Amino acid sequence: MSEAEVAALSVEDSQPSLDPDAKNPNAKKAAKEAAKAAKEAAKAERTQQRGVKAAVMTQPDADDPLREQYGDYPLVQSQGQSGRVWTRVDALNSELNGQKVLIRGRIHTTRGKGKSAFLVLRQRTATVQALLFADEQVVSKGMVKYATQVTKESIVDVEGIIKVPEKPVEGCSQKDVELHVTLIRVVSRAAILPFELVDAGRSEEEVKAAAERGEVLSTVGQDLRLDNRFLDLRTPANQAIFRLQSAVGQIFKSTLLGEGFQEIHTPKLIAGASEGGAAVFRLDYMGTPACLAQSPQLYKQMAICADFDRVFEIGPVFRAEFSYTHRHLCEFMGLDLEMAINEHYFEVLDVVEKLFGAIFDGLATTYAKELAVVGQQYPFEVPTFKPLRLTFPEGIAMLQQGGFPDVDPMGDLNTELERALGRMVKEKYGTDFFILHRYPSVVRPFYTMPCSDDANYSNSYDVFIRGEEIISGAQRVHDADLLVERANACGIPLDTIQSYIDSFKYGAPPHGGAGVGLERVVMLYCGLNNIRKTSMFPRDPKRLTP
Amino acid sequence: MSEAEVAALSVEDSQPSLDPDAKNPNAKKAAKEAAKAAKEAAKAERTQQRGVKAAVMTQPDADDPLREQYGDYPLVQSQGQSGRVWTRVDALNSELNGQKVLIRGRIHTTRGKGKSAFLVLRQRTATVQALLFADEQVVSKGMVKYATQVTKESIVDVEGIIKVPEKPVEGCSQKDVELHVTLIRVVSRAAILPFELVDAGRSEEEVKAAAERGEVLSTVGQDLRLDNRFLDLRTPANQAIFRLQSAVGQIFKSTLLGEGFQEIHTPKLIAGASEGGAAVFRLDYMGTPACLAQSPQLYKQMAICADFDRVFEIGPVFRAEFSYTHRHLCEFMGLDLEMAINEHYFEVLDVVEKLFGAIFDGLATTYAKELAVVGQQYPFEVPTFKPLRLTFPEGIAMLQQGGFPDVDPMGDLNTELERALGRMVKEKYGTDFFILHRYPSVVRPFYTMPCSDDANYSNSYDVFIRGEEIISGAQRVHDADLLVERANACGIPLDTIQSYIDSFKYGAPPHGGAGVGLERVVMLYCGLNNIRKTSMFPRDPKRLTP
Repeated sequence: MSEAEVAALSVEDSQPSLDPDAKNPNAKKAAKEAAKAAKEAAKAERTQQRGVKAAVMTQPDADDPLREQYGDYPLVQSQGQSGRVWTRVDALNSELNGQKVLIRGRIHTTRGKGKSAFLVLRQRTATVQALLFADEQVVSKGMVKYATQVTKESIVDVEGIIKVPEKPVEGCSQKDVELHVTLIRVVSRAAILPFELVDAGRSEEEVKAAAERGEVLSTVGQDLRLDNRFLDLRTPANQAIFRLQSAVGQIFKSTLLGEGFQEIHTPKLIAGASEGGAAVFRLDYMGTPACLAQSPQLYKQMAICADFDRVFEIGPVFRAEFSYTHRHLCEFMGLDLEMAINEHYFEVLDVVEKLFGAIFDGLATTYAKELAVVGQQYPFEVPTFKPLRLTFPEGIAMLQQGGFPDVDPMGDLNTELERALGRMVKEKYGTDFFILHRYPSVVRPFYTMPCSDDANYSNSYDVFIRGEEIISGAQRVHDADLLVERANACGIPLDTIQSYIDSFKYGAPPHGGAGVGLERVVMLYCGLNNIRKTSMFPRDPKRLTP
Repeated sequence: MSEAEVAALSVEDSQPSLDPDAKNPNAKKAAKEAAKAAKEAAKAERTQQRGVKAAVMTQPDADDPLREQYGDYPLVQSQGQSGRVWTRVDALNSELNGQKVLIRGRIHTTRGKGKSAFLVLRQRTATVQALLFADEQVVSKGMVKYATQVTKESIVDVEGIIKVPEKPVEGCSQKDVELHVTLIRVVSRAAILPFELVDAGRSEEEVKAAAERGEVLSTVGQDLRLDNRFLDLRTPANQAIFRLQSAVGQIFKSTLLGEGFQEIHTPKLIAGASEGGAAVFRLDYMGTPACLAQSPQLYKQMAICADFDRVFEIGPVFRAEFSYTHRHLCEFMGLDLEMAINEHYFEVLDVVEKLFGAIFDGLATTYAKELAVVGQQYPFEVPTFKPLRLTFPEGIAMLQQGGFPDVDPMGDLNTELERALGRMVKEKYGTDFFILHRYPSVVRPFYTMPCSDDANYSNSYDVFIRGEEIISGAQRVHDADLLVERANACGIPLDTIQSYIDSFKYGAPPHGGAGVGLERVVMLYCGLNNIRKTSMFPRDPKRLTP
């Protein structure tokens, strides 16, 4: 607590006193004024110190001639617009040599050494070194002290001159420049952190290499990260992962818009279970039993029956499954598409291949920097893309010949078999992406269109990246009578799907579609080991916060 | 039931007979074969007749030499790819005069007259007239009969020659061409409709004009429409409305991406109520009490604390409110944005104005056709856009001088006052769009930043189109201590928002944002009278289906 605050409190807490001066009106007035001044000073200092727990320097000494060059800002409260221009850290380069720039960034690290201070300023994935040296002309000793006491992760405004150092600055993204600080002011101070950002951003390789040298480097466990996700998300790898996630969404949209699709939004609150079987979240809707949509399946098909022709939806999908695996979430982003076809589900596969060609190409070219940043913490090879369609029986044959002679030719593939097939396909065809189509009917939902030549197989497909499924899709049954037949055969009670069946009775276009999990695409593209790394605030059976 | 079906059933139902021929092996074999043939014929006919309730002609007579030119297709089941090319109805124009085209569309209307048939084919918002005249060279009598018996809303493939008629075809969107049919085949037959599409697409003006002539024209009520939404959505106005909805979403995204924003996805399943006060949907999450997010407010702010700098989210928003008004839904699409600011919430308003400038401009130019189609059923004037910012006290002064002398200068505006202010602003400044900022603190949420010069006012804003609110937003409190102070002042229990408060303790950028309701934007832009018109499958206190 500051002296001013102590003074203010002592006034507020004081009882009527027996001080002989108390009856002296002048003394009383002077005391009142002093108390008022102390209170105001305390209030001002409290304002400056918001969020600061330790007793650190937040304001210059009044007698420092350079006192205008440092000290905490008052709370930014839209007091006015100064017209100043802030430069982005990733825009700092040697072409700016000698120029003065203003930067708003976080204190990534600080180090004081005698009369000098070395700071690393961070802005998203970019870092730059900033220096102060007390010469009492531009920088005072007080300013150096102030700078070294700013807590890590605090947000600061720093003004300084860009200079090109003799040697590149190792450990910063902006290696060919450093900033010679002329002004430093805190915008928002950070309290003691639950973990260090440097530890959270460390690769396993770095830890292993240090261990071999006999050093122990800290890392941060998944739960501690997720409990403090707003902090964990600041690591360069996470900054890049969620830029990639945003990018995949944009490429999905722009590619489909280019193919004549239109975006729709369908309700997540629905009256019945959206698909038979899997667990749903149930709730009370104004007195009516309701549940959360497990997929937009039925609604996107209704949109096709309503003549929207080609639609996509990007929205949350809810699964009340107790699956605690590396690739399941209870809430994830579904990228769904559905389209009328003229004749064949290959029309859908043409779109799917175009879509993933665009995603693979877009990420590898436009987002090469983000991929590199992710790779610094989680090394991976950029996956290869070649359009490839294999039938399910072809896939079974490859597995049978490739070391799995007992694989069930009419059963679904488990994770092990999928991965094995992915490896074989990679080896034989040189692609991390492929489509497996014509699945056995028994392993697909009731609304899947059977093959015309053999009803034991269906007009369905899964799409794989690195041998893990990212898309499931099919031509759908668009004929109400056949749908009833299939529902009966699969034991689905008709009364639960009546309005769905009805929507095919008034002229229904042949159609097909697919559903993609956004988090899975990013996870598998980057070869990450856990889907929680690609969900901003993941939801699994054990986690509902933050 | 067809003869073939009756034959098949009688075979299936027959008991071992005492027929003297029964012991004759030849007769038995012949009977078996006959039964098999009957079953197959019945099966084939069932396939052809799927969904057809009335006894209509679905296949040509075997002796019609032109029998290849008509008749129902077998169920489209990805039998193969023919390489045929379908032309879109809206692409038909007089430049194609004399050319043969293939079209897949719906039967909008049919009319038989002697040896000829007149069809209107519809594809989304486009319609074209198609003609058949039985000359027994290209078209047979059977073909005309078949064509006139296809039920409305059935999907057909029609091949024909484009011709330019002497007079424009009134009542069709493609007025300068007609199609002389050479082939017509049903893809999917429609059952008897719950209402006529023509009635559902009729404007009130048309009904009134007919009434003045003494005619009664049918219309379709809102509930019947919504109960059969997949049908109702086929009207040209609805086709256009949801193209506009998709467009608003795309312009929102592309504008913000251009301003350096990134798309995020935050959870809809959350542990506590996302905002104090309003009603939430509650559910059980794997044994933990949970609720549905009423807004992404807290999460998008956490994304800012996590250095994402500028973010937007397009996602469902859930409000368990018993508001049965023209502008409330229990589930709607929120277009949310949140951004770090350097100094002032005007930085957010600059983005909001740029955004709505782009939306107004984009719709008026690129989507003029869709606006015209909506206007045919629901006439409206395209709204005007000029950037305009008024302070709340300025708005109050306008109301006081404009006929509302008793308006509370520190209270919120009700719908009547908002609309009145909208009219006054339109008259004085000539814009249907404006921003009202600096609302009294008491009418805003606890996390709203108070003004620096007067804490009775706040750094907040609403945005209006045609005098109705479409956006609410503010600079947020980014200081944990002040947030606690404000929560206490507003009576919010701190334990329910602790993790939210904590996220501001580790260096928080000053920031602000806004939330837009997608359905409201489209409704108010088009001057529609009910938000259910701009939600594909609306959810209100009385409606959870379809």
